[in-house]
Amino acid sequence: MNSSEFRRRGKEMVDYVANYMEGIESRQVYPDVEPGYLRPLIPATAPQEPDTFEDIINDIEKIIMPGVTHWHSPYFFAYFPTASSYPAMLADMLCGAIGCIGFSWAASPACTELETVMMDWLGKMLQLPEAFLAGNQGKGGGVIQGSASEATLVALLAARTKVTRRLQAASPELTPAAIMEKLVAYASDQAHSSVERAGLIGGVKLKAIPSDGNYAMCASALQEAVQKDKAAGLIPFFVVATLGTTSCCSFDNLLEVGPLCNKEDMWLHIDAAYAGSAFICPEFRPLLHGVEFADSFNFNPHKWLLVNFDCSAMWVKNRTDLTGAFKMDPVYLKHSHQDSGLITDYRHWQLPLGRRFRSLKMWFVFRMYGVKGLQAYIRKHVQLSHEFESLVSQDPRFEICAQVVLGLVCFRLKGSNKLNEALLQRINSAKKIHLVPCHLRDKFVLRFAICSRTVESSHVQLAWEHIRELAAAVLSAERE
Amino acid sequence: MNSSEFRRRGKEMVDYVANYMEGIESRQVYPDVEPGYLRPLIPATAPQEPDTFEDIINDIEKIIMPGVTHWHSPYFFAYFPTASSYPAMLADMLCGAIGCIGFSWAASPACTELETVMMDWLGKMLQLPEAFLAGNQGKGGGVIQGSASEATLVALLAARTKVTRRLQAASPELTPAAIMEKLVAYASDQAHSSVERAGLIGGVKLKAIPSDGNYAMCASALQEAVQKDKAAGLIPFFVVATLGTTSCCSFDNLLEVGPLCNKEDMWLHIDAAYAGSAFICPEFRPLLHGVEFADSFNFNPHKWLLVNFDCSAMWVKNRTDLTGAFKMDPVYLKHSHQDSGLITDYRHWQLPLGRRFRSLKMWFVFRMYGVKGLQAYIRKHVQLSHEFESLVSQDPRFEICAQVVLGLVCFRLKGSNKLNEALLQRINSAKKIHLVPCHLRDKFVLRFAICSRTVESSHVQLAWEHIRELAAAVLSAERE
Repeated sequence: MNSSEFRRRGKEMVDYVANYMEGIESRQVYPDVEPGYLRPLIPATAPQEPDTFEDIINDIEKIIMPGVTHWHSPYFFAYFPTASSYPAMLADMLCGAIGCIGFSWAASPACTELETVMMDWLGKMLQLPEAFLAGNQGKGGGVIQGSASEATLVALLAARTKVTRRLQAASPELTPAAIMEKLVAYASDQAHSSVERAGLIGGVKLKAIPSDGNYAMCASALQEAVQKDKAAGLIPFFVVATLGTTSCCSFDNLLEVGPLCNKEDMWLHIDAAYAGSAFICPEFRPLLHGVEFADSFNFNPHKWLLVNFDCSAMWVKNRTDLTGAFKMDPVYLKHSHQDSGLITDYRHWQLPLGRRFRSLKMWFVFRMYGVKGLQAYIRKHVQLSHEFESLVSQDPRFEICAQVVLGLVCFRLKGSNKLNEALLQRINSAKKIHLVPCHLRDKFVLRFAICSRTVESSHVQLAWEHIRELAAAVLSAERE
Repeated sequence: MNSSEFRRRGKEMVDYVANYMEGIESRQVYPDVEPGYLRPLIPATAPQEPDTFEDIINDIEKIIMPGVTHWHSPYFFAYFPTASSYPAMLADMLCGAIGCIGFSWAASPACTELETVMMDWLGKMLQLPEAFLAGNQGKGGGVIQGSASEATLVALLAARTKVTRRLQAASPELTPAAIMEKLVAYASDQAHSSVERAGLIGGVKLKAIPSDGNYAMCASALQEAVQKDKAAGLIPFFVVATLGTTSCCSFDNLLEVGPLCNKEDMWLHIDAAYAGSAFICPEFRPLLHGVEFADSFNFNPHKWLLVNFDCSAMWVKNRTDLTGAFKMDPVYLKHSHQDSGLITDYRHWQLPLGRRFRSLKMWFVFRMYGVKGLQAYIRKHVQLSHEFESLVSQDPRFEICAQVVLGLVCFRLKGSNKLNEALLQRINSAKKIHLVPCHLRDKFVLRFAICSRTVESSHVQLAWEHIRELAAAVLSAERE
């Protein structure tokens, strides 16, 4: 395909994309296909000779779309939102064309420097403490990771290296293995599964701290675990505090937990994957109070800030904590500026070597929406979730299961788990809307997350009417 | 931005991209900017009100392009290629629009199933042993990782889990920490820095095996290290064999190393990040002989197979080795099909949770080029590297430093390292072409990698003329 054909086909694809987004509401949000549907529809091997572009475009509707869960449908209320905006898509086109691999400053200076500045822009939008910003001479700074899972793992590994060096400096006879065996990390029992996984990968114990009545980790429970472990000869070194848990969007008590981490010399990482975007609104910024105690902070603009996946924003107070853990300098990656102290080589801040020019997406989105446009977007979602909450609350058959703070409503039919499992099963079989459940303590709960960029009050109302009808059917089936 | 504005701006962006690719040859391949150039060019904070699209498009040429290293310029001969093709860019546009997060089958069946089938297509193109393919009932299968670094780490972690379980089954009193302390992994001293990093992250010893005269790891050296470590009470468990090293594109001796790994019950991972793409050509397929001994195999279609970054292809013989290492099943990620045994939840195969619909890029590229088109592309690059090799060989002032097998030529001026450092410095200061160096043993060597999709014999000839001129200047400066 030469560039003149790309001009033609690219414009056709732009129209296809616009048509898809415009018409998404009329597509069934969750597909009808069964596992294994796709393989029989396509050849067993790649073609020897080229297929035509028309063939491929036709196959999208025939083969791909029947198996797509439409995350951007206004009837998609599952998981958490994943971002989608036209400015981000435009930026991604440019990113693909430039196609640089920005592992070092020299590999593409613009790719590295725009990222540093965009992370400062975003940090300022969140009113992060100055210590997290790169600025001109800061010790901190931000980096785009692929996902919150990676950010948690990177933080844990940096903390592991830091504590190991500190202990070895004091007791040179200690081997890394002897230290690792005693390291303990902590997170709330409501923390995301990726936190447990980070502990597993990093080869350290990770203990779940029982959350309180609001599904929040508070200092007393953490303190108790730390004291017990220290008494047993273990070495507490790392804490993940979650702001906006996946199950019910609860918030760990940072103002209590933060000082405790500082006192006990434990690295504090904040995972605000979903909720972080809301902190650009002054009225939600108090939820971030206590961030000043943290060593690292992460949230996903690719969830709720209109920057298409992937773009997970991570800041650290001391960038040398990251680079100290990961730095490797083979000759083929060296360049003349790297020891100047002026530049950033992001390969030392992350797990993979290669990286795309993702900051272009932030640049386009922040500029084309403006801060006010982004704030309006967050507020609209929060308002819609409160609208849904209010509908649920007015129906005495239902209960709200956790405080509605941002765009997630946890609710259920008053009654057994079995009843609620049946309701969810009916909802997801009908495929008019799509939800996923969670467990809160021993309760099976339905999660209603405001997700789509184009979701409006009318969709929420329709969804609620639909849920009520299915609930009536479930309740009536139960009585029979 | 609504969809009608996106239709307009998207088409403008398509033209911008096509113009950029068409005109890339006239841009200086390496930028003139100094570290810190970008920050003064843009505001210190994000705008409150939206900027116009015109402002942003104008800023691309003003702010971004002056700091771009043009990886797709036909005068870019640095590192290894990173893929760029129009079909991949079209697929990426579609991927952005669908914007699903394919962590589980249910999260978007098409995303998961196309990936499984595309990995089978690609595996067949490489004539991988049947055991690596998913097929309908296979135990193996492929997954798209973000980078070869991640693939190596995933393999190491899976191997670590597997050996730990095996040893604990035999001796239940052993703690994971006690086992980890004794684990040893091996790779050639020519292996990529990401292999050392995987060992560091995984908390296991990684030992470098001295390569032979062809910069290859052979069985005798590996055997010696394994015997010595076993005698010392350590537990050898993991070997990375490299096909196509970064420094000089050398190939570890798989036919020797493979059986040794099997005999010693060590997981064998093959890293063919760059070279793997060439194995779709029958004449290069023998370089992969011995893959049947491996547990996992990885290469990067995003390097040399025209599938834009990121797309790192990894296969395993036993998918349960991966899922066994990583599986976590919180309720909010469960779905009704997951225990059917028929489906794949790729979140258990990788480090992050989220993932993009990257197999669309493979589908578009494989179909629009056809296997023959892809083979022709590989062959053209190899032919150009031999052309450059021949030019260098005809100049008695130069020497070739390693066998030219694929698209990389390692060469240097006969003489001191200082002389060659001076030559490289002149080349990269002139900025007509861009190269990076490597060390081979104690020698400073220049790497000439055929990279761009549009590079032709004329560019190689011009590059060589330019290098000769600068070499003459360096040699003459030395004589003064």
